[in-house]
Amino acid sequence: MDWQVEIRDAAERISPYVQQTPVMQTQGFGLGFPVALKLEHLQHTGSFKARGAFNTLLSQPVPPAGLVAASGGNHGAAAAFAAHQLGHKARVYVPEMAGPAKISLIESNGADLQVVPGAYANALEQAQSYEAATGAMQVHAYDAPATVAGQGTCFAEWQAQGLEADTLLIAVGGGGLIAGALAWFRGTKKIVAVEPGTSCALHAALQARQPVDVDVSGIAANALGAKRIGAICFELASAQDLTSVTVPDSAIVKAQTALWRERRILAEPAGATALAALMCGAYRPAPGERVAVLICGGNIAPDPLG
Amino acid sequence: MDWQVEIRDAAERISPYVQQTPVMQTQGFGLGFPVALKLEHLQHTGSFKARGAFNTLLSQPVPPAGLVAASGGNHGAAAAFAAHQLGHKARVYVPEMAGPAKISLIESNGADLQVVPGAYANALEQAQSYEAATGAMQVHAYDAPATVAGQGTCFAEWQAQGLEADTLLIAVGGGGLIAGALAWFRGTKKIVAVEPGTSCALHAALQARQPVDVDVSGIAANALGAKRIGAICFELASAQDLTSVTVPDSAIVKAQTALWRERRILAEPAGATALAALMCGAYRPAPGERVAVLICGGNIAPDPLG
Repeated sequence: MDWQVEIRDAAERISPYVQQTPVMQTQGFGLGFPVALKLEHLQHTGSFKARGAFNTLLSQPVPPAGLVAASGGNHGAAAAFAAHQLGHKARVYVPEMAGPAKISLIESNGADLQVVPGAYANALEQAQSYEAATGAMQVHAYDAPATVAGQGTCFAEWQAQGLEADTLLIAVGGGGLIAGALAWFRGTKKIVAVEPGTSCALHAALQARQPVDVDVSGIAANALGAKRIGAICFELASAQDLTSVTVPDSAIVKAQTALWRERRILAEPAGATALAALMCGAYRPAPGERVAVLICGGNIAPDPLG
Repeated sequence: MDWQVEIRDAAERISPYVQQTPVMQTQGFGLGFPVALKLEHLQHTGSFKARGAFNTLLSQPVPPAGLVAASGGNHGAAAAFAAHQLGHKARVYVPEMAGPAKISLIESNGADLQVVPGAYANALEQAQSYEAATGAMQVHAYDAPATVAGQGTCFAEWQAQGLEADTLLIAVGGGGLIAGALAWFRGTKKIVAVEPGTSCALHAALQARQPVDVDVSGIAANALGAKRIGAICFELASAQDLTSVTVPDSAIVKAQTALWRERRILAEPAGATALAALMCGAYRPAPGERVAVLICGGNIAPDPLG
């Protein structure tokens, strides 16, 4: 697959529907070196997921049954939003662990919402049954080419905005976003995958040299808690010299707090996870190495304006 | 005074110390037309006030007694931050109405903080007494040339970032920020002053054709609640064809909520006031008129991360 072509096509396809998100160069966070940020949490429905959802719906015919998605929250909201904008039905299965804020976000975007006991894997199972029964189109949260190409547009956009960085730090759940980065940059930039120690499917897969099931928990689990890394991500990560690090939940909380206190950026735990790797030293750039951090999600709970 | 020169000089002076804030083009808020936003609430200490504070401290010698400021909150935090960065003492008088979140923000920036019963005018009186007694340097929140030139750098920066707008909407308290805009653009763009109906010193002054005292109250009062418009602002506003509108507090709340729900921008009420004028129709752009809105502050209460 020529990912560069896929990502360029995706960017053209989705551009009327997605938000170009701002970038900034900043100091602080106790780091002693500057960091480039992309504020992708300002994307529609508060995360990068809208990119993959729109690309999926716009790149193939959508059946009358509409779409079905399983989601820890952000992908479900994005799929519901994209379906609504494009005039399709959307059935979204969401695990209870998504929490009331994300569940209400999905509902407010017009989805037919089904809350499933347990974690993401349980929701995915039900979504697959619904797909088989109705012919609805499955919009996968991370492990489908159209999803990965959609997320890749985030990095094409960043590069067009003048990204000057040697290294990008990106939080990883199921791997759709980082797969987009690996696919777009093709080794021209160092990519650092950052996962919570409590949900680290990519880290475990790289150690085992194959995707393996992991237990997921912790404060970022409703966004980053994939039980197994996506096959597309694993393949791209294995083919490149990817750096993989994990961070403790306490470091994620510190990064989330620093983003708000110092920079008035309100991110959810997953959105602060990449910065946490710099702040806690899980990744230490060399002197002069220019680093960039993607703020990938802003759907915090409880809602600050309740 | 050649304001263009003053603002250019200020920009050069303060550039190592202030944050270049991001801009974005967006849709939504029920408007039906695009809006350019500048996210100045991501400035140090959460508002544009850091610009004026740094310019004041860097453009003249600071006495051993340091600086003194009176502030509804944002200016005090900015003055304390700037003083701390530059190694000066800072005494800040803040009215009780600033509220615990802003009072704690000022304290956390290292100021010698004095909480004064009443509103901004009471705090200003005490700051003036302290200035007279100690020789400390008064950093005025809005009505001093160095403050206005500092705030003007926000618009020079926006223009350098490729601002494409016919019209800028700007919230007004004491008038330092909008004075900076009037001074920088000199009539080349339409400037719309937006004030809460509950705190509208500029609107009242333009009607009376001179600065007059007004009562201040309402949800944005701790940021926009100046009792009388600054003389510099009034002079600049009178010399240009300024459009002045007011908005009800309910419209400010709606705009604040929409910024968060639709765009994950968490602004304080003052920071949402300019957008409120578009959303409630207090200002209706002509077909094709390109509008820009400055998000000027993000110091909400209570603190969302408590």
